[in-house]
Amino acid sequence: MSCVSLINVDGAGTLLQHLRDGMPRTRSELAAATGLGRSTVAQRVDALLASRLVGAAGEATSTGGRPPTQFAFNAAARPVLAVDVGATHVRLALTDLAAGVLATEVVDLDVGLGPEVVLGWVIEHGRQLLATVDRPLSELAGVGVGLPGPVEHATGRPTNPPIMPGWDGFDVAGFVGAELGCAVAVDNDVNIMALGEHALGFAAVDHLLFVKVATGIGSGIISDGALRRGAQGAAGDLGHIQVPHDVDALCRCGNIGCLEAIASGAAVAARLQAAGINATSSRDVVALVRAGSVPAMRMVREAGRTIGEVLASAVSLLNPSVIVIGGSLSQAGDPLLAGVREVVYRRSLPLATADLRILPARAGDLAGVVGAAVMVIEQVLAPDAVDRYVAVAG
Amino acid sequence: MSCVSLINVDGAGTLLQHLRDGMPRTRSELAAATGLGRSTVAQRVDALLASRLVGAAGEATSTGGRPPTQFAFNAAARPVLAVDVGATHVRLALTDLAAGVLATEVVDLDVGLGPEVVLGWVIEHGRQLLATVDRPLSELAGVGVGLPGPVEHATGRPTNPPIMPGWDGFDVAGFVGAELGCAVAVDNDVNIMALGEHALGFAAVDHLLFVKVATGIGSGIISDGALRRGAQGAAGDLGHIQVPHDVDALCRCGNIGCLEAIASGAAVAARLQAAGINATSSRDVVALVRAGSVPAMRMVREAGRTIGEVLASAVSLLNPSVIVIGGSLSQAGDPLLAGVREVVYRRSLPLATADLRILPARAGDLAGVVGAAVMVIEQVLAPDAVDRYVAVAG
Repeated sequence: MSCVSLINVDGAGTLLQHLRDGMPRTRSELAAATGLGRSTVAQRVDALLASRLVGAAGEATSTGGRPPTQFAFNAAARPVLAVDVGATHVRLALTDLAAGVLATEVVDLDVGLGPEVVLGWVIEHGRQLLATVDRPLSELAGVGVGLPGPVEHATGRPTNPPIMPGWDGFDVAGFVGAELGCAVAVDNDVNIMALGEHALGFAAVDHLLFVKVATGIGSGIISDGALRRGAQGAAGDLGHIQVPHDVDALCRCGNIGCLEAIASGAAVAARLQAAGINATSSRDVVALVRAGSVPAMRMVREAGRTIGEVLASAVSLLNPSVIVIGGSLSQAGDPLLAGVREVVYRRSLPLATADLRILPARAGDLAGVVGAAVMVIEQVLAPDAVDRYVAVAG
Repeated sequence: MSCVSLINVDGAGTLLQHLRDGMPRTRSELAAATGLGRSTVAQRVDALLASRLVGAAGEATSTGGRPPTQFAFNAAARPVLAVDVGATHVRLALTDLAAGVLATEVVDLDVGLGPEVVLGWVIEHGRQLLATVDRPLSELAGVGVGLPGPVEHATGRPTNPPIMPGWDGFDVAGFVGAELGCAVAVDNDVNIMALGEHALGFAAVDHLLFVKVATGIGSGIISDGALRRGAQGAAGDLGHIQVPHDVDALCRCGNIGCLEAIASGAAVAARLQAAGINATSSRDVVALVRAGSVPAMRMVREAGRTIGEVLASAVSLLNPSVIVIGGSLSQAGDPLLAGVREVVYRRSLPLATADLRILPARAGDLAGVVGAAVMVIEQVLAPDAVDRYVAVAG
């Protein structure tokens, strides 16, 4: 098939989009779906077969004569490395090209050790994970990276991240790409969790707001089916919206009255501590709620109400059909959700809340890595990128 | 060309998208841009020529031999009727398929007269406008309608519009479509103004928030280059977001502290009236500011600051690169913009405001009709719609 690169395979990437739902199709069905001529479809299918992005998938029922071959997207063609960097841990996963998880590894590692140490570990253990599933590095399609701070998505560089000393402006995409030799996409942890929740728990929802309530508070916005990052990739920054009361709470950003300074896991823990109850983190607060501590339940519900006040604004602006509440404080369960629901349904106009559901996160610990995989797969399987790959791989 | 409907012209609509920028191209250039074969391109160009959506546009420079013909989008092929219904006036325009205005008409008409009266006038005068430019009704490609209240865009029906008695749930699209025999798209006035400002004043901006400050306050959100309406078409509802102070202002929606109850043209007029200065509308407030009234200037600037508080939240959530301030109170000019800027730049995080510009509207009175035209043209020139049209028109 070395002749493939000599013929025009532009358009193979567009054809592949019709197969990404995983359903097998014949050449005739692909011609009908795309409006392309049969010879064009046959040429592009051949190119995709040569690249292994598509494989034969049995025979369709014949309508007389030899039964036609069916073709399907081959998600196993190439692995993807997904990286979810938290404040104190890193989770790795290898996935296929449909973001299905093949292998994972998680390690306690402080992000404050800096990008060379953390990304060095990622690169080393990424190679090892590939070896455990018997795939050569040359097959790696891309790397998706989530970081616990603001990221300029277009350049793959962190921007003034508060808890990531040494990372400001670091060329994460360039550093990882140079070692692993493939496409690298970088975004903040909240956006990749939003993508992961969407993919694993809410694939049919076109307008989704994912809210992470943990040490800080942030959100990822899915609108018309796609993540919206805004002009600088800073969209979804719920944590520093001013709450309509409590304007004496000083936030680490320098402003007063920010949501994060009042209703985050850290803020609730501090308030419990001030009330003489030992709590220093979201995790401690969740443990207290689970143990039945009435003050903890009361304060978590109050935090939910305060988050609800800001979410009422977000509902007015974005009109989502689902709000997903995740992050460590969300493990406190009912008191947080009840507080959020109470205020959102009271404050928002009927049209915007008619079909609005406010639900707990569903994807668990894998949301971040699956979202990181989804993010880079969208780049790797974009029509132009597929055309370039197919031209070389044939 | 009656044979056109017998051959497969699916894909003509996709080909047309490559020509919508207005640049002429040869068949070879179109083949290169689309990756389609030359015979496929030739067939689709023929179908588009037969439909008149594309026309021959002179000859390209020859590289030897007969110079190849160039083809260009023919925006004049069919007219579009654009309708901007305000509280007390209706503006009509005929445009071409690039939203270029061919003729306009404006009349004082109270929306409270109800849908049959108002839309009856629109239908009658729409026909007359077509006659003035010598185009038969059969050529009309579509009608875009903007209404001064909430609209369920998917069905083209108003939803509990506060200032539109008799319009709730009325099938605007069905009523107009039955009379004029073409596609009808309906949305609220703020969304169509956002589309019009984007088209006429800020076409290169991918992330734009248009804010209308008039009797009420609303916004239209353009993100990644397209209007985002949310799940029920209710996105952008700035006016009923609660302001972080002034929580004793009762809003017509029944909540307290809504932005609209504090900072709209109506609210500023009421405050001036209470201070013994005669003002009952946005227009009165603007006249006072222009006449140099210090209390009016002070109150408009304060309204700008309050709007800025809510816009600071919108900036955190959406990360636009441009905020456009329009609507009748925006004619007050500098005091309003200065108030907005003061608070947005103080409250928002540096990453989100690094390249943010806050600017006055540019499109003037035509924003609504041009936006209404853009809205329906997007439907009429969508690839599938073009394929259907071309199959019949050939």
